[in-house]
Amino acid sequence: MKNFFLVLFLLPVVADAQNMNEDSLFIHQIAVNILSSDASYNNLHYLTKNIGGRLSGSTNMYKAEQWGEQTLKNAGADNVIMQECMVPHWVRGGQDKAYITYKDANGKPQKYWLNVLALGNSVGSGAKGIEAPLIRVNNFDDLEAKKNELKGKIVFYNVPFDDTLINTFQAYSKNVIYRAIGASRAAKYGAVAMLMRSMTNTPGNYPHTGSLRYADSIKKIPAAAMGLEDVKKLDSLFDKNITVTASLFTYGTMLPDTIAHNVIGELKGSEHPEQIITVGGHLDSWDPAEGANDDGTGIVQTIEVLRVLKALGYQPKHTIQFVLFANEENGTRGAKEYAAMAKKNNEQHIFALESDAGGFTPRGFAFDCNDIVMQKINSWKSFFTPYYGDRFEKGEAGADVGYLMQEFHTPQAGLSPDSQRYFYIHHAATDVFENVDIREMKLGAINMAALIYLVDKYGLQ
Amino acid sequence: MKNFFLVLFLLPVVADAQNMNEDSLFIHQIAVNILSSDASYNNLHYLTKNIGGRLSGSTNMYKAEQWGEQTLKNAGADNVIMQECMVPHWVRGGQDKAYITYKDANGKPQKYWLNVLALGNSVGSGAKGIEAPLIRVNNFDDLEAKKNELKGKIVFYNVPFDDTLINTFQAYSKNVIYRAIGASRAAKYGAVAMLMRSMTNTPGNYPHTGSLRYADSIKKIPAAAMGLEDVKKLDSLFDKNITVTASLFTYGTMLPDTIAHNVIGELKGSEHPEQIITVGGHLDSWDPAEGANDDGTGIVQTIEVLRVLKALGYQPKHTIQFVLFANEENGTRGAKEYAAMAKKNNEQHIFALESDAGGFTPRGFAFDCNDIVMQKINSWKSFFTPYYGDRFEKGEAGADVGYLMQEFHTPQAGLSPDSQRYFYIHHAATDVFENVDIREMKLGAINMAALIYLVDKYGLQ
Repeated sequence: MKNFFLVLFLLPVVADAQNMNEDSLFIHQIAVNILSSDASYNNLHYLTKNIGGRLSGSTNMYKAEQWGEQTLKNAGADNVIMQECMVPHWVRGGQDKAYITYKDANGKPQKYWLNVLALGNSVGSGAKGIEAPLIRVNNFDDLEAKKNELKGKIVFYNVPFDDTLINTFQAYSKNVIYRAIGASRAAKYGAVAMLMRSMTNTPGNYPHTGSLRYADSIKKIPAAAMGLEDVKKLDSLFDKNITVTASLFTYGTMLPDTIAHNVIGELKGSEHPEQIITVGGHLDSWDPAEGANDDGTGIVQTIEVLRVLKALGYQPKHTIQFVLFANEENGTRGAKEYAAMAKKNNEQHIFALESDAGGFTPRGFAFDCNDIVMQKINSWKSFFTPYYGDRFEKGEAGADVGYLMQEFHTPQAGLSPDSQRYFYIHHAATDVFENVDIREMKLGAINMAALIYLVDKYGLQ
Repeated sequence: MKNFFLVLFLLPVVADAQNMNEDSLFIHQIAVNILSSDASYNNLHYLTKNIGGRLSGSTNMYKAEQWGEQTLKNAGADNVIMQECMVPHWVRGGQDKAYITYKDANGKPQKYWLNVLALGNSVGSGAKGIEAPLIRVNNFDDLEAKKNELKGKIVFYNVPFDDTLINTFQAYSKNVIYRAIGASRAAKYGAVAMLMRSMTNTPGNYPHTGSLRYADSIKKIPAAAMGLEDVKKLDSLFDKNITVTASLFTYGTMLPDTIAHNVIGELKGSEHPEQIITVGGHLDSWDPAEGANDDGTGIVQTIEVLRVLKALGYQPKHTIQFVLFANEENGTRGAKEYAAMAKKNNEQHIFALESDAGGFTPRGFAFDCNDIVMQKINSWKSFFTPYYGDRFEKGEAGADVGYLMQEFHTPQAGLSPDSQRYFYIHHAATDVFENVDIREMKLGAINMAALIYLVDKYGLQ
């Protein structure tokens, strides 16, 4: 591509200044402003490079809260509320390590290091580690079939990421149960630790962490994820029926709950200040990386919606709360507190929008609402077509705004970016600034701002 | 993202095996086969890494033709036609170089190297180079305003890439005229060489080449593009009214036309063998890189459509030609020959599909056809929704299949991938294998195969 004089080939429906009504014109101004501004680049760069990973309870979490408060003010918030909540305080405690030993074809002992990351909320093995025979299971059925062989062993869950599913979140959803409860399921039969294949579809050897939840009555055992090259190595040994012993060293500890804050910037409504529209992402992230796509981009997009509405002089009719939620990753305590306080204060929450699926080029939104609201939203679809955000589907909006649904049946939406590249970096050391495409992130922010503008202007009734 | 037990949030309309008819089931099989196969990865890797850049007339072009012939056979073509055509044979001839000299604030002489690439088809300065004062112009209007100052100078076209346009091809289309005829426009007023800001929206300093066309009656002057860091440097000098002299060394030569081939794999039609459906991309590429996205991915997708139809045992009703076009970049001679031979042989070309806009995650297709055909195609839209290829728009399909439109009014389509990242790498040294996302490329191939299947099965009448 491309010969000369190519004139308007492959062109999409494009904002055409002559044919715009007031709304499409305003949304076009949103787009031009966001695409021309360095604010979102600078915000993401600061959050990822000057602060970095910001696990609940960490020093970086508090730095991020202060940064969020200041940045929301700078973007034009009428006021910023620091809404206190208690969050779990898990610490990794050290450098996770693991290796295997086995005998090669000549009977010679071999040692091979695995690249592992302890799962969030997991207990540590401590410095002396856990050494035990490793047993491979392909899924829970396989685990049950082998339940009499698990005692005293380390269970290796080798559940492949289903590459044939087009939306990668489906592949993730299929497997996340192993990370969540795989340790307890193995411990029930006497396993002493759990290792798992990372939930990713990229080559390479980065382990991907994420939280687990121990069953109450079962012994808590250490648990960690490994990268796909290590999985290949293990498979090559198990496929030859070679006996493998694993040694795991993790240091995870759950400390007492600690204080954190939802950081809430507000634009006060001019007509219905008592009716609240929420836009948010989560400020916390896993520790091994910079939390760039998860969920730095959601945070930056949230702030960008505020910045652009102020920059264009838009006076909202309803109060808009721009929420940097605390503790999505291992507790969603921020979201619970936000919904609980809303209930306590008898607030009216009329709409909520979340961005927590990466900063990739947008496809549209997942809407969780009734059919009448959906019909109204569908009538706005053409406003989003020029910005590639017109794929409107029913679905869950997001983990944080979901609590408003439980309390108030608040209609809500989640930004749906293209999912193809998300699980390359999700919860791994590769979730860094360099793996965010700023332009793609901005396109998401444009669609978010357009949706908030339309909901505020026309309501959803 | 994401708390445990997230169940089916953000999920799109997804192929649901229970609710499939024969066609959606077959398209689902296409998807599973392509996503599970290494063929497209291996093909792109070979083409980019073992062959590399393949400018018309170069040794690599011939290697690529041989590879294409063999790969089409391996993929299951009934036969492979090597369709001869004559192509321009431009050679870069050496390492393009340029520097500027100027005096700093203290009057001290300074020298600064520019990172340049001569434009395709341009004449060289030769080893002695061209040294002349540099003059900046912002556009053709500015050029006209300064026409009396251009004699004996090197003109620097500093036309920014319009970042506020959502589809980046629009920004490219706005500016491509400067690359195409900017040299002759400047030479008309006595300029001795032309330098231009590369047509890209990425930071960094890679120059982006591409072809120019000299006006017949005007002296041919050397022309080259530079990266954006160098543009910044030049701007910082011009903005301070500092006098800048540039020295340019390029070695481009247009040799006599040489032989090349369209490489055409065929599947013979079982019902209407005389009616031809074309699928294609272009095999040639610019020389500074590997031609990975331009148009290695189009080539690999074309072959993948053939491979998957054969692998699934599909018997086409019409003859399908899988065409690896020669010489798109600086002549489209392959496409012209393909259309001319079709006319000469009284062939019936009923549909043509081109992929030449990068291997990025698909959005849909641009269709160039009449309204009746468009209506029929629109009735298939829902088949593409699960694969993210359902954005059906009217537009030009592509430079190569365009000649069939001229000859036969053949209805045609161009794959429309997401455009956000294309001009980061277009015609630059960064258009390499590593900058292709294989999964995104495969999604494009799935949508292409689905379209060919539907057109073949149901026709367009």
